[in-house]
Amino acid sequence: MSREFDKNMVQLVSQLATNYRQNFIFSLYDSCNLANKDEIIEILHELRQLIFPGFFEKKRLSNDTIEYYIGDLLISVEEKLHRQIKCVLLYKNHLNNESEDSYLEEKTNEICSIFLKLLPEIQARITIDVQAAYDGDPAASDIEQIIFSYPGIFAISIYRIAHELYKLSVPYIPRIMTEYAHNETGIDINSGAEIGKSFFIDHGTGVVIGETCVIGENVKIYQGVTLGALSTRGGQTLQGVKRHPTIEDNVTIYSGASILGGETVIGKNSIIGGNAFITKSVPEDTRVSVQNPELKFKNSKPKEFEQEFILDWII
Amino acid sequence: MSREFDKNMVQLVSQLATNYRQNFIFSLYDSCNLANKDEIIEILHELRQLIFPGFFEKKRLSNDTIEYYIGDLLISVEEKLHRQIKCVLLYKNHLNNESEDSYLEEKTNEICSIFLKLLPEIQARITIDVQAAYDGDPAASDIEQIIFSYPGIFAISIYRIAHELYKLSVPYIPRIMTEYAHNETGIDINSGAEIGKSFFIDHGTGVVIGETCVIGENVKIYQGVTLGALSTRGGQTLQGVKRHPTIEDNVTIYSGASILGGETVIGKNSIIGGNAFITKSVPEDTRVSVQNPELKFKNSKPKEFEQEFILDWII
Amino acid sequence: MSREFDKNMVQLVSQLATNYRQNFIFSLYDSCNLANKDEIIEILHELRQLIFPGFFEKKRLSNDTIEYYIGDLLISVEEKLHRQIKCVLLYKNHLNNESEDSYLEEKTNEICSIFLKLLPEIQARITIDVQAAYDGDPAASDIEQIIFSYPGIFAISIYRIAHELYKLSVPYIPRIMTEYAHNETGIDINSGAEIGKSFFIDHGTGVVIGETCVIGENVKIYQGVTLGALSTRGGQTLQGVKRHPTIEDNVTIYSGASILGGETVIGKNSIIGGNAFITKSVPEDTRVSVQNPELKFKNSKPKEFEQEFILDWII
Repeated sequence: MSREFDKNMVQLVSQLATNYRQNFIFSLYDSCNLANKDEIIEILHELRQLIFPGFFEKKRLSNDTIEYYIGDLLISVEEKLHRQIKCVLLYKNHLNNESEDSYLEEKTNEICSIFLKLLPEIQARITIDVQAAYDGDPAASDIEQIIFSYPGIFAISIYRIAHELYKLSVPYIPRIMTEYAHNETGIDINSGAEIGKSFFIDHGTGVVIGETCVIGENVKIYQGVTLGALSTRGGQTLQGVKRHPTIEDNVTIYSGASILGGETVIGKNSIIGGNAFITKSVPEDTRVSVQNPELKFKNSKPKEFEQEFILDWII
Repeated sequence: MSREFDKNMVQLVSQLATNYRQNFIFSLYDSCNLANKDEIIEILHELRQLIFPGFFEKKRLSNDTIEYYIGDLLISVEEKLHRQIKCVLLYKNHLNNESEDSYLEEKTNEICSIFLKLLPEIQARITIDVQAAYDGDPAASDIEQIIFSYPGIFAISIYRIAHELYKLSVPYIPRIMTEYAHNETGIDINSGAEIGKSFFIDHGTGVVIGETCVIGENVKIYQGVTLGALSTRGGQTLQGVKRHPTIEDNVTIYSGASILGGETVIGKNSIIGGNAFITKSVPEDTRVSVQNPELKFKNSKPKEFEQEFILDWII
Repeated sequence: MSREFDKNMVQLVSQLATNYRQNFIFSLYDSCNLANKDEIIEILHELRQLIFPGFFEKKRLSNDTIEYYIGDLLISVEEKLHRQIKCVLLYKNHLNNESEDSYLEEKTNEICSIFLKLLPEIQARITIDVQAAYDGDPAASDIEQIIFSYPGIFAISIYRIAHELYKLSVPYIPRIMTEYAHNETGIDINSGAEIGKSFFIDHGTGVVIGETCVIGENVKIYQGVTLGALSTRGGQTLQGVKRHPTIEDNVTIYSGASILGGETVIGKNSIIGGNAFITKSVPEDTRVSVQNPELKFKNSKPKEFEQEFILDWII
């Protein structure tokens, strides 16, 4: 770097280092590492291979040798997960005294062990979600296509993994996982939400499912649905309060609907029409449809459009 | 892995292996590989380099040597595409008898050959889409910026590639391709849709274009537009039925509009206003605008807000 | 490649090469490279490491050695940025005469130097945005979680970087940067927008902030908010015109609202309710809420649903 910038370099480094030393955000973690996002994403990819064996690797699997494959992946997942969980527990609890290390090791082992034993159950649940997607979508040619391509299944799978870690009070990692799914799919499911069996999200872009949602079994939702809070202007004072709705079994919610508030309950078997805006409970077996905004029609020749649009045309 | 988890490991591997052997989802493909998603994405990247030479590589291209570059990329694309197509044909048709191998090879060669011969035509079509984006967007400084950065062009390019494979009845790969674009852009175009020349999508997040849509030439759509189905509660019984609308030439559809149903036709030259919700056909040369929901205005000092919001404020 | 395709290969290469030579899109850059998108994304990752030291690397940082870390990253950023800026200036200005090379080098040095000196200021601004996210979101357990996972902070950070390059009139690179953030988060902030301190975007999918927006301090917006243009049917003739709204200090805009037009001003301290559609200015201290579309409720037993839905049920 033999350019003019050299002379400013020293000063710039000094300014950034001063920021680093003085800013409360950065001064926290001098004594330990933070979680590594890349490794957490690797864990998710390996778990997905475990859950859908044969779908996301180049090797051919066979009934006879599947144990080797599974065992190998499990060891890899366990090592990475152990490292990341230990890291976030250390950081979050400000444990930097070596005398606490055996406690930390024990706690990490316990969490890893509980989580991994849940894997067959998680796998079974996700398999039911795949079936729900197949049953619900005429564009699905077969089960394999859903596993390969459907963003809803990707997001739900990651949610089901992250939710178990959330219940085990693992800091940071559950949210990093669900925000990775949000990045990939546009589907934002908070890892704290409770979601029952056989859940289907179609298309999915723009879906938001808040932290304190409770969702029953056989629920179907479409793109752009928000299961959100009423005002969050209380900010941090609302932490822990149930702010998001309860959706009972067999409910279908069509695209663009918003259902808001911690007291709001959508009763079982109900169907919520597209674009509905709901802030009060809806009883069982109810169809809610929207009197959509009135449309105005005007017939014009294209030439007239061109003259008018700058004056009054609205997106 | 010298930790407590070891002792549970054997049992866990056994449980997962049992799931693998017994679940109908996984038992299908013991005899052959599935498609490899990573390689399909590589194919897309190489095709994009072929379609926009010079835009997505570090090497400098030159008029004199362009044949070497194109030839080299084509060989690479053909090899990968051949491998993936053979793989999905084998899998989808349960061909595992070696006597069928020559038929499979022949069929794969035929599809590859037809598809690759279409490349100059696909390139020409995408070039017209780029021009449409430039003409339609005042924020576009030049053509290059559109090719580099516009998510709409990314999604349309991948759709145009995937649609040709869809027409050739290639299983899995077209949907994997368009869902990759959906991941990257939030624009969900089903590979089965038919879309005419000079198509422009601006911003694009949340756009959904269903499998049986038919879209004419010079159509412009904005973020959040759904060209969708009426009820899909019929699930698999609706497969193959035209469930999505027809949009004729020169139609513009502004953001957030939903146009639903297989019988719904938007006549040529029409303009659909933002947030319109349309389930019936609209004649030619029609401007549809929305009587937007009435707004209520209330002037208050900020202090009052703070007292009120917990009681009644709604997102 | 010993397959049938060989014989068509030569013709196909020739067709694509002819397209390349004749199409005005591709003929432009025979004499120089274009920007490399991958390297621009690497620059963003390294800048993020500089802005949030310790969050996105595997190494442990320490107060004592932070200068080495920062210095090393800065050298790397400067080299890449210099290469990319020189590349786009050369391309955009059609400078291919060697006698212009010293001018180009000087200009590139000047831009790099100004931009890098701004880094501590950019870092300080982003830190304030992080604090705004923490204060505004009850689901945020701590500051670290926000830096790790929040898509809003990701998109705003990249916008703040890109905006400085935009103000320095660097072609292509700012838009490539913000479209990368758009890809990752579904949040589309044009690098030309002007955004004040302490800006918070929650969830974020579907947010669109147009090129000529002006946004004050302490503004909060939610998913699906559009700060857009009225008609853009004027296309390229509207380039440079203020087409997008002004949002004053302390405004909150809830999900799904659209605020459109270059003359539209939302006065300070106002709150815009979800789904509001606004094309005219709103005075200070105003609460705008939406008379949401009327809902129709119908109680039915599930059996009846099944009979009816094909006839009249609407998504």
